[in-house]
Amino acid sequence: MIDLRSDTLTRPTAAMRRAMADAEVGDDVYGEDPTVQALEERVAGLFGHEAALFTPTGSMANVLAVRSVVAPGQEVLCESRAHIARAELGAHGAYSGVTMRTWIDPRGQVDLPVIQSLFAPDMGPFFVATAAISVENTHNFAGGAVLPVDDLRDLHEYAAGAGAAVHMDGARIWNAHVATGVPLAEYGACADVMAVCLSKGLGAPVGSLMLGTADAIAEARIWRKRMGGGMRQVGILAAAGLHALDHHVERLADDHAHARLIAEACGVDPASVDTNIVVVPRSDAGDFVAGAREAGVLVALVGPTAVRLVTHLDVSREDSERAAAALARLA
Amino acid sequence: MIDLRSDTLTRPTAAMRRAMADAEVGDDVYGEDPTVQALEERVAGLFGHEAALFTPTGSMANVLAVRSVVAPGQEVLCESRAHIARAELGAHGAYSGVTMRTWIDPRGQVDLPVIQSLFAPDMGPFFVATAAISVENTHNFAGGAVLPVDDLRDLHEYAAGAGAAVHMDGARIWNAHVATGVPLAEYGACADVMAVCLSKGLGAPVGSLMLGTADAIAEARIWRKRMGGGMRQVGILAAAGLHALDHHVERLADDHAHARLIAEACGVDPASVDTNIVVVPRSDAGDFVAGAREAGVLVALVGPTAVRLVTHLDVSREDSERAAAALARLA
Amino acid sequence: MIDLRSDTLTRPTAAMRRAMADAEVGDDVYGEDPTVQALEERVAGLFGHEAALFTPTGSMANVLAVRSVVAPGQEVLCESRAHIARAELGAHGAYSGVTMRTWIDPRGQVDLPVIQSLFAPDMGPFFVATAAISVENTHNFAGGAVLPVDDLRDLHEYAAGAGAAVHMDGARIWNAHVATGVPLAEYGACADVMAVCLSKGLGAPVGSLMLGTADAIAEARIWRKRMGGGMRQVGILAAAGLHALDHHVERLADDHAHARLIAEACGVDPASVDTNIVVVPRSDAGDFVAGAREAGVLVALVGPTAVRLVTHLDVSREDSERAAAALARLA
Amino acid sequence: MIDLRSDTLTRPTAAMRRAMADAEVGDDVYGEDPTVQALEERVAGLFGHEAALFTPTGSMANVLAVRSVVAPGQEVLCESRAHIARAELGAHGAYSGVTMRTWIDPRGQVDLPVIQSLFAPDMGPFFVATAAISVENTHNFAGGAVLPVDDLRDLHEYAAGAGAAVHMDGARIWNAHVATGVPLAEYGACADVMAVCLSKGLGAPVGSLMLGTADAIAEARIWRKRMGGGMRQVGILAAAGLHALDHHVERLADDHAHARLIAEACGVDPASVDTNIVVVPRSDAGDFVAGAREAGVLVALVGPTAVRLVTHLDVSREDSERAAAALARLA
Repeated sequence: MIDLRSDTLTRPTAAMRRAMADAEVGDDVYGEDPTVQALEERVAGLFGHEAALFTPTGSMANVLAVRSVVAPGQEVLCESRAHIARAELGAHGAYSGVTMRTWIDPRGQVDLPVIQSLFAPDMGPFFVATAAISVENTHNFAGGAVLPVDDLRDLHEYAAGAGAAVHMDGARIWNAHVATGVPLAEYGACADVMAVCLSKGLGAPVGSLMLGTADAIAEARIWRKRMGGGMRQVGILAAAGLHALDHHVERLADDHAHARLIAEACGVDPASVDTNIVVVPRSDAGDFVAGAREAGVLVALVGPTAVRLVTHLDVSREDSERAAAALARLA
Repeated sequence: MIDLRSDTLTRPTAAMRRAMADAEVGDDVYGEDPTVQALEERVAGLFGHEAALFTPTGSMANVLAVRSVVAPGQEVLCESRAHIARAELGAHGAYSGVTMRTWIDPRGQVDLPVIQSLFAPDMGPFFVATAAISVENTHNFAGGAVLPVDDLRDLHEYAAGAGAAVHMDGARIWNAHVATGVPLAEYGACADVMAVCLSKGLGAPVGSLMLGTADAIAEARIWRKRMGGGMRQVGILAAAGLHALDHHVERLADDHAHARLIAEACGVDPASVDTNIVVVPRSDAGDFVAGAREAGVLVALVGPTAVRLVTHLDVSREDSERAAAALARLA
Repeated sequence: MIDLRSDTLTRPTAAMRRAMADAEVGDDVYGEDPTVQALEERVAGLFGHEAALFTPTGSMANVLAVRSVVAPGQEVLCESRAHIARAELGAHGAYSGVTMRTWIDPRGQVDLPVIQSLFAPDMGPFFVATAAISVENTHNFAGGAVLPVDDLRDLHEYAAGAGAAVHMDGARIWNAHVATGVPLAEYGACADVMAVCLSKGLGAPVGSLMLGTADAIAEARIWRKRMGGGMRQVGILAAAGLHALDHHVERLADDHAHARLIAEACGVDPASVDTNIVVVPRSDAGDFVAGAREAGVLVALVGPTAVRLVTHLDVSREDSERAAAALARLA
Repeated sequence: MIDLRSDTLTRPTAAMRRAMADAEVGDDVYGEDPTVQALEERVAGLFGHEAALFTPTGSMANVLAVRSVVAPGQEVLCESRAHIARAELGAHGAYSGVTMRTWIDPRGQVDLPVIQSLFAPDMGPFFVATAAISVENTHNFAGGAVLPVDDLRDLHEYAAGAGAAVHMDGARIWNAHVATGVPLAEYGACADVMAVCLSKGLGAPVGSLMLGTADAIAEARIWRKRMGGGMRQVGILAAAGLHALDHHVERLADDHAHARLIAEACGVDPASVDTNIVVVPRSDAGDFVAGAREAGVLVALVGPTAVRLVTHLDVSREDSERAAAALARLA
């Protein structure tokens, strides 16, 4: 079986397992795990943020990040199929009391004029105020689309002027970086608060980080404990993250090439595939998923008429070619 | 001063005050206030719903209504400037754990194709499901626009087929009814759960109602108490509502005529004014509000470049003409 | 039927109805209702607090008051049968994210040594800190017991020294005042934030107030709107409250005498009845309630083995004597 | 330094690290991690529960477990210093909307008569109902006290009869089992829902489990994802748990012996030390902590006048003797 359902499926390599087994650890709830600290400092540095916080999942990193800039009863604006809106089970409302309004863009892009029309300045105690604008880069359900750094810069400038923060869900920011060559710090400069993930394209088994100011991270550390995310000798997992940063970033270019190969086989224009995700619109989505499975390829249903295929560390060039051949027959 | 800031400003008439003073009352927390019961039965009947619940405000009626059809972690879809999204201080997130996505329509209308593209069916435990679609009729921040009953019927049919409820914020449904002649029960048939208000155009001092099935209302009664909305001898207020239903519905036609008069004076096409609300787009909105005040007319700022004028029970034909003259000079 | 279930059952008198019918009103959401303002200023003044806020219910006044001094994730300490713990449907947890620990006192009293043993100082980000201590005076489910002002003063001094606030649920503080002669302002001086009620012993149909600093009240005004408690021409109800303050405070002494009469008939030591509530412990509580009803007296079940009888404005001396006679036969 | 602050501080042994490095893994969000499944099945089996769910922390396991049996607005009863009340940052209120009342027992024991007096049966829509009673075994802040299985059995029988669930916080249930010889399944039979921890006495770096019925676990799996606790190839951590179950349970007897040694040195009666935790009451608690640190022993402040010392896997017999000698000089 070639598994293209998600890049969360990657298994740690032998070298990564060794790094975990050898990790120096301490009790991170007490702030005493040196490997976690090394990872947090390194990732904060990569994005030019003051500080970072390790979390068990990207969802928790997003929840902590958004709540650090949006109080209960305030709102965050985001694109309609953003991960924070669609795939975190409503946690921002259910756990942070945050309200949300959305703009709609088929490619998940920043649409600044529409965002400006939605933006609600603080007009006193009768109206909900926009406290943050959230972007997802790359945008998962828009097929791994990259958000151009110029758009992000313009958005950040607008938001700062309007008194709102920018949250970037950078679960796959590494893919954007490799696809465009834009330095991570340039993306980091476009957001007040971020979440980045180690267990998707980078291939670590578990782990994400929230990034922001030192104050925001200090407060998020308390809320992480309240959410049940304050783990102990978690340097074991952080070591996988450090290893992934050393060895699994540049290779994402391969995943992107594989994705274009597979896109073409599915009748999707490869030029429209920015990174490692292909979303195939199909009215027979359910049947397509079943047919692919019979042909030895696992793909994911992400909407009533949408199938998603994702390349990753555990899908080789050869796997990609075999999958492409099988899917071409199906499509 | 002629006060056009809102139709919430109306003061009870002498006859309404007498009705309140004479009301038969009991302890409504114990379900023993006959005037409240009469009002709840009458309003439920008007809209063809099984039962109704009196609440201190329209906001509480909306919060109770939405939560009756949307569980924590599920979502409601609504237009981007809906009252539930913009003017209830994020209560649906903060108090009900509900998440929200929005479509954008300048006239606050039902845009079924876009709603269908947003709609998220229940796809298992990873995705947020759309539990309800909310519409506001008339739509306050879209200038009191009426939502055509045919659109509402289509929406309700679509929602039912898709397994979702329709919530109607009918704070000003009376205005829609008078403007179009569509019976209240036809509007009521287009929604699974509603909120209607007595203290806007109808001129009661306080009070709204949630409408729905008997089961939904029984459960909402408990949540109303939890929210601090379970009042005692509240038949005093319900009596004002009953009086308003007898005497203040048909006269809304006057408010609508007055609004068109005022719209024209402000350079807004009167044909675009469906009911009693005029929203005037002005880049100098703040100055316009100040200028109107100097000219003896109070109007409301509802956005950085939007001024709202509302006609109501306490604004006579003569007041309207004087206001129109003053505003024409300003505009 | 003589109705002793609760003092919430009182119906407005003819004079109170006239006061309501004549009330000058405005839109209180806009802060423009002169009668509400007069009531808020008067009640704040009575208790020596900076400001007050009118609310539809005592529950909402308590929720707003507690949240003004206890952040989500912090705790309030209270007696185990306090109204905030037992009779507000968990609103403080469900809506304010507040956690609670309790001490147990059969008479609902302040037990300072036990409170001190429970008190949790702020010990950093791992432990819940005690932000407030709540007392109820008089204590409803402890049979209307008065909390001695000396105990309240000691508690307040201790709390202030320990960095915590005191919340007083003064739904029936008027009864404590009349029973003891302690000025309202002396009670007010023992609490940082309070709730007082107009629709219990005082006989107004609807209404309570939160009291506190001007800052706390300003913020509570926003949260009141979020909870759906921001009503419009609510001076109608405030007028009843003003009337009650003029005419229904001193007469509470009659209710207290009536309660002692009824207590004796039920085999409860009248000396143990501080105010207008009698709780009768009965293993056959359900049968007792039914038997009383047959004998023309309505009483309330407030626990599996507890019956409550409450005297109030609508229970005359003669009613009380008749009820006592009927209950004596039953007991 | 000999570190007696907590048994959460243990570092994985070389053998445990090997087990982690060799673990077979999959994506546990998709339910495909065989090592996690093996751990969940094994632990469920040990306690005789139908199913189990791996969580990043004991706090999350407790939050998921309590919410599975207590709806928003309902209450859980627990001892006043229970971990769920004191050391989870108010998560049960803040995230689950649960309310809490407490009984007070210096040894953290089940006090059934007092619990019965607190218990609130479902009396209709005005009162908070007791949905669950929570016990902690062993009780951390009561000095690792064991709760006798007979008391737990009686409590469970009472709760079942009264229509409430029993939640057991079994973070250190392994210590109770080893100290008493009571089989884990006997403890498991006394609770409807449990949390057990692998990263305290058992020495795994990270991980806890919630236990309950298959239905409760299926629903908790969704809430775990909403809380941000749905991790991916987390078999790495589960492998440590399986290793700990094989190798680190019986040796807890050594920790218990060490704790008695240290208790005696601190002037605490060793007979009062049931397991691996010693709480020393000291009016000079802060100074004692500082003095111990100077003497090479780290201990924890857990209250203004309470110091806690905990023995664990990384504290040898020799360490214990050296710590005892140092602390005896100090005490």
